[in-house]
Amino acid sequence: MIIDIAADSDFSIHNIPFGIFSTADRSARAGVAIGDYVLDLLALSELGVFDFDTSVLGQSTLNDFIRLGKTVTSKVRTDIQSLLQDDSSPLAGKENLFLPRAEVTMHMPVHVGDYTDFYSSIEHATNVGTMFRDPDNALLPNWRHLPVGYHGRASSIIVSGTDIHRPKGQVMPKDAQVPIFRPSARLDFELEMAFVIGQDTSLGESISTDQAEDYIFGMVLFNDWSARDIQKWEYVPLGPFLAKSFASSISPWIVTMDALAPFKVDGPEQSPKVLPYLQYSGQHNYDIALEVDITPDGSSPSTICRSNYKYMYWNMAQQLAHHTIGGCNVKVGDMMASGTISGQSKDSYGSMLELSWAGSQPVPLADGQIRVFIEDGDTVTMRGAAQRGDVRVGFGEVSAKILPAK
Amino acid sequence: MIIDIAADSDFSIHNIPFGIFSTADRSARAGVAIGDYVLDLLALSELGVFDFDTSVLGQSTLNDFIRLGKTVTSKVRTDIQSLLQDDSSPLAGKENLFLPRAEVTMHMPVHVGDYTDFYSSIEHATNVGTMFRDPDNALLPNWRHLPVGYHGRASSIIVSGTDIHRPKGQVMPKDAQVPIFRPSARLDFELEMAFVIGQDTSLGESISTDQAEDYIFGMVLFNDWSARDIQKWEYVPLGPFLAKSFASSISPWIVTMDALAPFKVDGPEQSPKVLPYLQYSGQHNYDIALEVDITPDGSSPSTICRSNYKYMYWNMAQQLAHHTIGGCNVKVGDMMASGTISGQSKDSYGSMLELSWAGSQPVPLADGQIRVFIEDGDTVTMRGAAQRGDVRVGFGEVSAKILPAK
Repeated sequence: MIIDIAADSDFSIHNIPFGIFSTADRSARAGVAIGDYVLDLLALSELGVFDFDTSVLGQSTLNDFIRLGKTVTSKVRTDIQSLLQDDSSPLAGKENLFLPRAEVTMHMPVHVGDYTDFYSSIEHATNVGTMFRDPDNALLPNWRHLPVGYHGRASSIIVSGTDIHRPKGQVMPKDAQVPIFRPSARLDFELEMAFVIGQDTSLGESISTDQAEDYIFGMVLFNDWSARDIQKWEYVPLGPFLAKSFASSISPWIVTMDALAPFKVDGPEQSPKVLPYLQYSGQHNYDIALEVDITPDGSSPSTICRSNYKYMYWNMAQQLAHHTIGGCNVKVGDMMASGTISGQSKDSYGSMLELSWAGSQPVPLADGQIRVFIEDGDTVTMRGAAQRGDVRVGFGEVSAKILPAK
Repeated sequence: MIIDIAADSDFSIHNIPFGIFSTADRSARAGVAIGDYVLDLLALSELGVFDFDTSVLGQSTLNDFIRLGKTVTSKVRTDIQSLLQDDSSPLAGKENLFLPRAEVTMHMPVHVGDYTDFYSSIEHATNVGTMFRDPDNALLPNWRHLPVGYHGRASSIIVSGTDIHRPKGQVMPKDAQVPIFRPSARLDFELEMAFVIGQDTSLGESISTDQAEDYIFGMVLFNDWSARDIQKWEYVPLGPFLAKSFASSISPWIVTMDALAPFKVDGPEQSPKVLPYLQYSGQHNYDIALEVDITPDGSSPSTICRSNYKYMYWNMAQQLAHHTIGGCNVKVGDMMASGTISGQSKDSYGSMLELSWAGSQPVPLADGQIRVFIEDGDTVTMRGAAQRGDVRVGFGEVSAKILPAK
């Protein structure tokens, strides 16, 4: 191996995720995370190891690289794996190719044309329905028949490490007659994962569940920040709007579907049987362990949620087949998020709304504090990794600190 | 005047709207509609009449031109007005600058980063609430307190003249126990107008109602195609999704706020009084007459709706102030649509849903046919124009034909 990689690194030789980084003297460009380093793909390309138009590696987003197609991008990944494992490869001794990850600035990996958020965890949808509607009919009638989703705001998706001011907005206080304007008092995270579209379609075209993963380049961790009090007042009848559009945070490294393939598992049984266009063959769920930490300002982190992406009721193939069944076109870089990923046990709930049961059950932190929602100065960090035996493929983290309202 | 312009032309000397066109031997580029012609701005720039970086005029979208700011773009408009009215200007006799509008291909004028749809006509919201909820409480509690809106799909916004296949999707038939999959049987148009963002903001920044129009470059006609049967089944609780995302059609020429300024009028009184961040001074409604035609295949057009943009309860300044009050950033080219523009009289309703009162009152066409929703082969055409005395500023049309489901 050309460089040392810790056995517990998310960025093992089995991973090779793609991102966009810069340093004081290197403009934004494509890189690969490997161990504690970033491999500079633009610099690597100057060694002549690639046989495609490498100018895409010097761009400030991965869109044009991804658009080359998996024939190219999958081979780049396996070529890099081979080069890193060959002590006599052209990379040997080329120290300028490897930068400490701690010293680079990460950027949004793609330009996101459109962003869609699904609502595909049955445990999350059941929890929300139980709290706000009817415990005996927690799921709405359409929920088991289609992956409910909605369009979100693409412009406010930001990369991990970008601080966020608490949003202000209209809320209707309990028993009040008129709404008031104030900073959100119920700021929440939502533990999600998102996939990145890898291939354009034309308007009118549909993607079948069998084809779907060919159209997906890879995945990131996704924190769908939510202002619950703003959401409650605004969302009828057209859905969440300002309660979500102030920010969504993503992890900077896109882990490819190739790297995730060894972690496929069966999904939950779907009952009643879904319509033919949503039926699928093979495995489309993924065993990816997820965690959420809250770190109060100046304090230490508390892990308050341990969940897993494998719990999803609706899988990515079904989400993409549904999204396009009416002819809606998708574009390289579009992002589609899972919805909050909750499991069955209380410590696996993927939002403060569920963990504190709408504020009624405060969540204790390691330093003796409690939380019902997110407070100013709190940093929320999500991590995700798939592991089978010694093979580990991780996402790193998505982290952001909440600053007081402006 | 350098060229002849019919007195009733939408594209008078007072207008000067911007768009993107191409011909067999001219690649996509910026143009201005004037009378029956397109003025080729890239060719015009070669005469040295402009003092900005004119390479933006050769691009396939107007985004970078708009990003130059109104100091530049407003002057381009007034410069063109002067040049066209000066018989000794450098344009005189330059026939290659003017192409018959009927002979060029129009393209999307901007790359739309994000698309938002509001719901800002009180007549439309009242009609929908009366039909589907409760005539005595037709408006939901939040409606008079904030301009309800939601995120829409940007990728499927298409330019006038692009045919659309009827979408398929899940619908729940009346009295059925399980949904079925079929082509939409309740395909509808929505008569809307949309504004185009002219200036970027940063995440966390808000735009006041006073500043709002500085951030708006101009407007287009917008047909928010809707599949009512798909919408009814899918939209709870997160809003419309596939019922809208199969296509939205826009008119190709962006009419600037400068050209529309003479047509400002007072808006309706808002009661109860809105929160301070939604209060405004001055006039922000616009008197723009709107019409919708249905033309069955091989038949003649019937005008089935005559409405006006001045009916809007919530104006653009309020919509943009609301959209950004939580810190959501906007980008040049973002599109924000009004929601269906209905008036008080029955013939001013801006959708078939309202015109046929949910299908119960068929709408007669000139050729003896009737319509409750849109049928295969129908072309829906929307027109809009502002006129005061001899001064006419129009949008041309947005038109699209519905083809059978694929």
